Amino acid sequence: MTVADTVLSGPDGEVRIGDTHPFAIIGERINPTGRKVLSEQMRAGDMTMVMADAIAQVAAGARILDINAGVPGFDEAEMLSTAVKTVQSVVGVPLCIDSSTPAALEAAIPLAQGKVLINSVTAERESMERLLPLVARFGAAVIGMSNDEEGPQMDPQKRLAAAKKIVEAAADHGIPREDVIIDVIAMPIGAMPEAGRAMYETIRLVREELGCNVSCGASNISFGMPGRQEIDTAFLSMAILAGMSTAITNPMHRSVRKAILATDLLLAKDEYGSGWIADHRRETQSPASEQG
Amino acid sequence: MTVADTVLSGPDGEVRIGDTHPFAIIGERINPTGRKVLSEQMRAGDMTMVMADAIAQVAAGARILDINAGVPGFDEAEMLSTAVKTVQSVVGVPLCIDSSTPAALEAAIPLAQGKVLINSVTAERESMERLLPLVARFGAAVIGMSNDEEGPQMDPQKRLAAAKKIVEAAADHGIPREDVIIDVIAMPIGAMPEAGRAMYETIRLVREELGCNVSCGASNISFGMPGRQEIDTAFLSMAILAGMSTAITNPMHRSVRKAILATDLLLAKDEYGSGWIADHRRETQSPASEQG
Repeated sequence: MTVADTVLSGPDGEVRIGDTHPFAIIGERINPTGRKVLSEQMRAGDMTMVMADAIAQVAAGARILDINAGVPGFDEAEMLSTAVKTVQSVVGVPLCIDSSTPAALEAAIPLAQGKVLINSVTAERESMERLLPLVARFGAAVIGMSNDEEGPQMDPQKRLAAAKKIVEAAADHGIPREDVIIDVIAMPIGAMPEAGRAMYETIRLVREELGCNVSCGASNISFGMPGRQEIDTAFLSMAILAGMSTAITNPMHRSVRKAILATDLLLAKDEYGSGWIADHRRETQSPASEQG
Repeated sequence: MTVADTVLSGPDGEVRIGDTHPFAIIGERINPTGRKVLSEQMRAGDMTMVMADAIAQVAAGARILDINAGVPGFDEAEMLSTAVKTVQSVVGVPLCIDSSTPAALEAAIPLAQGKVLINSVTAERESMERLLPLVARFGAAVIGMSNDEEGPQMDPQKRLAAAKKIVEAAADHGIPREDVIIDVIAMPIGAMPEAGRAMYETIRLVREELGCNVSCGASNISFGMPGRQEIDTAFLSMAILAGMSTAITNPMHRSVRKAILATDLLLAKDEYGSGWIADHRRETQSPASEQG
C-alpha cells in the first residue's frame, strides 16, 4: 500500500511527513515530566523556558513541537492553553499536543493556529472512544500507539493488529489513514534481543498493510545499556531506512540530530547536502548551543 | 537466493561471514599507502608497527586483517611475505591479502595459515584472467569490485551486471559463489545525491540475484563533505540493515566501531549485549587506546 503524506500546519505553513520529505523531528523538550526548573516555572505561569526551548529546538531542526503540560495537581487545560499560545507567539511550526485529557485538548486545540497532531491514542477501546471524536471534531492528526488492552507486544503481527484497530476506529470517525501516525513502540534491546528486528518488521508491515506513516520514541531501545547515544543513533538510521518518517526526540542532542541529518543526506532528501552543510556551519559558529 | 556464509580461517580457526554472524570488520591499517612512518619501517624491513597495528586492530574488534605491502620501487613479493609471517606470529585471525600482483600473491599466500581472502579482482577481463586462477589454485576467497571496463556505474543494474560477470568467471574456475564477496563501491554522496539509495538497492540485488555476501569501502561515501565520521556511521548502520556483512575499515575509529557493534546488537547478533558491554568496559579501562 502507498503511504500518503501526513500534512500538519502552523503559522508558517504546512509540514509534510512522508517518504519524499526530510525526516520530521517532533521536538520533545516542552514537557515538565522530569524537568524540575521547567515544571516550577510552568506552575508559576512563567513561560520563559518554554519560549527558549521552542526557539532552540526549531533552530536545531525540529519541524514540529510537542507540548506537554501535565503537572500533577495543576489545571492542565489552562497550562496547556498558555503554553500553546506562548509557543506559537515565537515559532511558526505545527504543534503536537501531548495530552490524553479531553478537557485540556478541547481548551488548547482551538488556540493553536493550523492543523495539530494529538499525542496519543492507544488501541484500547476506552482510549479510542475518549479521543477519536476530538481528533475528528478538530480536523487533527493523531499518533496511535500500537498496543491494546494486552499491553505492548513483541510479535510484529500483534502490533499490526493493534495498529489496525486504531486505523479502523479512526475511519469510523471519518479520520483518514494519512491522519493516523502509528508509533511502533521501541522496547529495550538489552532485555529483549529481538526488539530491533521486531521493530523493523513492524515498520514494514504497518506501511504495507495499513499505508500509515510510522513514528517511535527512539530512546527506549537503549534503556539499561551503557553507551545509550550510540545505540540510539544506529537505531534511528536503521529505522529510517526501514521506513520510519517521524519521531518524538530531542534535536538538541547532537548525535541524534546528526544521525537524522546524515540519514536524510544518504536517502537523497538533502540534495547536495545543503541541510548537512548548514548544520555544520551553525555548529561552527555557535558551539556553545550544543549538548552532548 | 539464499546468501551462503563465506568461511575464512587463520591460526585460531574459522571466521564466518554472513547474515547470522556478527559483522566482519576487515582491519585496513596495515597498508603503507599514505602512512609515512609505516612505509619507512616496511622498506627498512622493520615490522614493529605492522605487529602493533595487527594486535591493536584485533583487540578493537577486527575479525580479519587486510595486509597491503605496495611500496613503489620495492619488492612487493618479499615485503608482503614478511608482513604475512609477522602478522600471523602475533594474532590468529584470517588474512585478507591486498595485492593485484600475481608474483606477490604466489609468494605470500602459501605462507599464510588457513584460508585467505584476496583483495581484489574487478569485472575487467584482464583482472579476472590474471587473478581468478590464483584464487582457485590456493582455495582462497576473493573480493570482486562491481566495476568493469566502463568504470564504476551508479545504476544498480549495471553494478549487478558487473558483479555477475565475476561470479560467472569465478564459477568457470571452480570457485563457488560463497567464495566471492562483492564490493558494491561507495561513491561520494556530496556529488551524487543518489549514491546512498543506489548502494542499498545494489546490496539487495546482489544478494537476491547472486547470493553473494556484500562488502564496501565505507568512507568514500562522505568524500568532500564536512563531518565525515557522522555520515560514515549512519551509512554503515543503514548498509548493514540492507544486507552488507563485511567491510574493510578501521576499527580504531571509535565511531565506526561503535556503529558496527550497535548494529550487531540491534540485529540480535550480540545477545544480551555482551559484545557491546565488553567494548564499553575495554574503553573504560584503557581510554588512551582510543582514536576519535
